Amino acid sequence: MLRSQTKLMDLGRRLCRSIGNNNGSNLTMVEVDDKTGIATLTLNKPPVNSCNLELLLDLNESIKQIERNGSRGLILTSSNDKVFSSGLDLNELHQPNQDRLIAFWRALQDMWLSLFLSRVPTAAAINGHAIAVGCVLATACEYRVMLPGFSIGIHATKFGYVVPPFILISYLSVLPRYIAERALLQGKLFSIDEALHVNLIDEVADGKSDAIIKCAKFIGSFAKTQPDARALTKRQTRAQDVQLLIKDPEGQLRESLEYINTPFFQQGLEVYLAKLKSKSKE
Amino acid sequence: MLRSQTKLMDLGRRLCRSIGNNNGSNLTMVEVDDKTGIATLTLNKPPVNSCNLELLLDLNESIKQIERNGSRGLILTSSNDKVFSSGLDLNELHQPNQDRLIAFWRALQDMWLSLFLSRVPTAAAINGHAIAVGCVLATACEYRVMLPGFSIGIHATKFGYVVPPFILISYLSVLPRYIAERALLQGKLFSIDEALHVNLIDEVADGKSDAIIKCAKFIGSFAKTQPDARALTKRQTRAQDVQLLIKDPEGQLRESLEYINTPFFQQGLEVYLAKLKSKSKE
Amino acid sequence: MLRSQTKLMDLGRRLCRSIGNNNGSNLTMVEVDDKTGIATLTLNKPPVNSCNLELLLDLNESIKQIERNGSRGLILTSSNDKVFSSGLDLNELHQPNQDRLIAFWRALQDMWLSLFLSRVPTAAAINGHAIAVGCVLATACEYRVMLPGFSIGIHATKFGYVVPPFILISYLSVLPRYIAERALLQGKLFSIDEALHVNLIDEVADGKSDAIIKCAKFIGSFAKTQPDARALTKRQTRAQDVQLLIKDPEGQLRESLEYINTPFFQQGLEVYLAKLKSKSKE
Repeated sequence: MLRSQTKLMDLGRRLCRSIGNNNGSNLTMVEVDDKTGIATLTLNKPPVNSCNLELLLDLNESIKQIERNGSRGLILTSSNDKVFSSGLDLNELHQPNQDRLIAFWRALQDMWLSLFLSRVPTAAAINGHAIAVGCVLATACEYRVMLPGFSIGIHATKFGYVVPPFILISYLSVLPRYIAERALLQGKLFSIDEALHVNLIDEVADGKSDAIIKCAKFIGSFAKTQPDARALTKRQTRAQDVQLLIKDPEGQLRESLEYINTPFFQQGLEVYLAKLKSKSKE
Repeated sequence: MLRSQTKLMDLGRRLCRSIGNNNGSNLTMVEVDDKTGIATLTLNKPPVNSCNLELLLDLNESIKQIERNGSRGLILTSSNDKVFSSGLDLNELHQPNQDRLIAFWRALQDMWLSLFLSRVPTAAAINGHAIAVGCVLATACEYRVMLPGFSIGIHATKFGYVVPPFILISYLSVLPRYIAERALLQGKLFSIDEALHVNLIDEVADGKSDAIIKCAKFIGSFAKTQPDARALTKRQTRAQDVQLLIKDPEGQLRESLEYINTPFFQQGLEVYLAKLKSKSKE
Repeated sequence: MLRSQTKLMDLGRRLCRSIGNNNGSNLTMVEVDDKTGIATLTLNKPPVNSCNLELLLDLNESIKQIERNGSRGLILTSSNDKVFSSGLDLNELHQPNQDRLIAFWRALQDMWLSLFLSRVPTAAAINGHAIAVGCVLATACEYRVMLPGFSIGIHATKFGYVVPPFILISYLSVLPRYIAERALLQGKLFSIDEALHVNLIDEVADGKSDAIIKCAKFIGSFAKTQPDARALTKRQTRAQDVQLLIKDPEGQLRESLEYINTPFFQQGLEVYLAKLKSKSKE
C-alpha cells in the first residue's frame, strides 16, 4: 500500500518544504500520504542530522505546518540510513556567540514543546542511531519503532553536560523513574534489545519502510477518537511536565545558558571535541 | 465460608440501605459480613449502573456509612452480572439543566474523593464491563479482581470528551505513565488479558463469589496493621493527587462544566447518543 | 582482587573513623579501596544497627567525609551478618526527652538528605535484614544487592506509625506507585524473591564479598562520566523529591514530632515494645 503510494508521490503529489535555511538545501522534508493523511517528517541534514540552529528552526516550522495542514499524524524519521540524529551540534555550544546561543537554545525549547505537545498523534521511525537530543526527539513522540544495530540514549554526563529539566521529562514520560535516572547518570546508550526491554522503544522493525508502516498502524489506533478531544487530553496529561517551560521559558533559557557558559563546561567540551576529532582522523 | 454467611444474612442480619432515590428502589446496597467485618457495596441501578445524580449521591452516602460503621474493608461490586458500571449517565451531560448539572458534577467529585481516600481498605469485584467512570470507580479502589469476558477502560476521547484531571489521576495511580496516557488518548477498552498484563487489574476470578473471596483476602492482608496509621498513610500517599480537588473543588467544577457546555462537546455528544440509540434499535 | 586488597588493608592503609559516640566504639567504619577509590561504609552498632541519635550523626559524618575525600563511590553495608539495620531505635521515640527527640529527628533528616543526594555513586550491599529505616537507607542508594534469606521493607503501619513524606519518596524513587503504596499500607516485608521481582533490589549475591563486588561493578559503570556533571544531574533529578525537606526542614521536623508526641502513637508504641520484649524473652 505504502509502496504504491510512493509511486504516486513520484508523479507529483509529494509535498516538500524547507524553511529556515539559506543554502537552498532541505534540512527537513514533509510528505503527506494522501490515502492515510499521515505526514512523514524527514530529518535531512548531512552528515548526521546534528541539530544546529537552522535545523531546529526548520524542524519546528515543519511540525507546526503538519498541524496546520490537518494531517492525521506525524512520523519522524531520517534520510540517513545510519543516523536518526546525533543530537545537538556541539559547535553551537563551544565558545558560542551569545546572540546565536540564545537563538539556538530558544529554538531548541520551542521545537521540543511543539513536538511534545503536538495536536496530532506522533511516532518515531528510528532508522539509525538516536543520540542525546536525537533520543529526546524520539521520546517526545508518542510511539517509537527502531531498526536493529543502532543505539539510543542520552550520554550527556560523558562530556560534562547537565541536561535541562525538559530533557529529563522526555525520559520520565517513557521510562520508570529508577531506570530513567540511572540511564541519565550513566550516560547510557541502549542497544535495541535493552531499549525494548525497558520500553524506551515500543517495537523493532526490519527496515525503514516496515518502521513507517508500524508507526502508521499506531497512528491508526486513534482513528475512532475525536481529534480535538484527543489533542486536549494529551495537552492536559503533559501539562505538569511542561509547566516550567511554558510559564517561564526565558528563565529556563537563562539557566541553561549560564551552565553552558561556565569555564567548567567549556573546558570539558573542548577536551571532548578534541577526542572526537582525533578519533575521526584515525 | 461466605456462602454460609450469606445464609445467615438471609436470617436477618443483612444491612441494606438506599439513600437519595425517590422511587423506593435501592440504588446501592450495603451488606456487612459479621465474621470478617467487611462491607460489600453493590451497585444496583438497572439496567447498567449508569451514574446519574441519584446513584452518585447514594453511592457516596454508602461509602461514608461503611467508614462510620467501622467496617474492616469495602468491596465494590454490581448486582448486574454483565455490567459493573457503564459510566456516567450521558443524559446528565446532554443539554443539561444547569442547576442539576452542578449538583451532578459536585456529587461525582465528592463520591470519587470519598472512595479514593476511604479510610478502610477497598477492593473492586468487577463482575461485568467497567466503562469510563465504571473504570474510574474500580481504579479508585486499592485492588481489582475481574471476571473474564468483559472490558475495562476509559473511552472518553471516542465521544469527544476530555476527562478532568482526577480521572487521569485514577489511571496514573495504577498504570505506568506511558500506558496511562496512551490508553486514555486511544480511548482504549482493555480485555481482561490486556488489563492483567499492564496491572490495570490485579487478579482474574472465575465467578462473582470467587472475586469477592479474592477481594476479602486482599483486605485481610491489612489484618496486622493499625487501622488509623493505615488510613493516614493512605491519605498522605494520595495527598498530592487530590490537592487540586480538595483545595479548589469549585474551580475544578467550573472548568469541567465550561467544557461540558461548549457547543463543540454538545454536538459531539448528540452524534454519539444518536449512534448508540440506532445501535440499540438494530 | 578485593581479597588481596583486603590483605593490603591489613598492612595499614585501612582508614577508619568514628564520630559522635562517647563509648570509644566505632558506630560506622569507612574503608577506602586504594585501587578502585571506592569507600565502604559499614554500619557497626551492635546488636542490630538500630539507628539512635549517635549512629545517625556518625553515619551522616561518614557520608560527608566520603564525599570530601574524593572517593569514587560509596558502598553501604553492615558488620553484622544477620542484620543490615533494624531501623530506628524505637527507644528514641518512646516517651522521649523533647530536646533529644528534636536532635534525633533532625539527624535523621540530615543523614537521609546526605545519602539521597550524595555526589558520589552509592550502592547498598544488604547482608542482612533491612527493616524500616534500614530499608530507607538501602533505597536512598542508587543500587541494591542483597543476600538471600533476609527481609526488606517498611512495616511502620504495624506499630501505628505514619511515615513522613521523605520515607514515601524513598519507596517511590524505586518502586512503581501502586506497589509502593500497597507495600507501605500493608507494612510489607519483602522476601528476596519478592524484592527482586518488583525491583526493590537489583541483584542477589551469594555472600557479602560477592555483594561488595557487584556494588563496585555498578559504581564502575560511571567510570566514563564526568563526576561533577553526574552529581549535578543526580541532584536535579531528585530535586523535586526533596523540595519540602530542603525548603522547610523545621516545618517537616515539627510535623513529625507532633505525630510522635500524640498519645495515640505513644500508646501503640508501648504495646508494640511490650510485645517485642515478651517475644525476646521466649
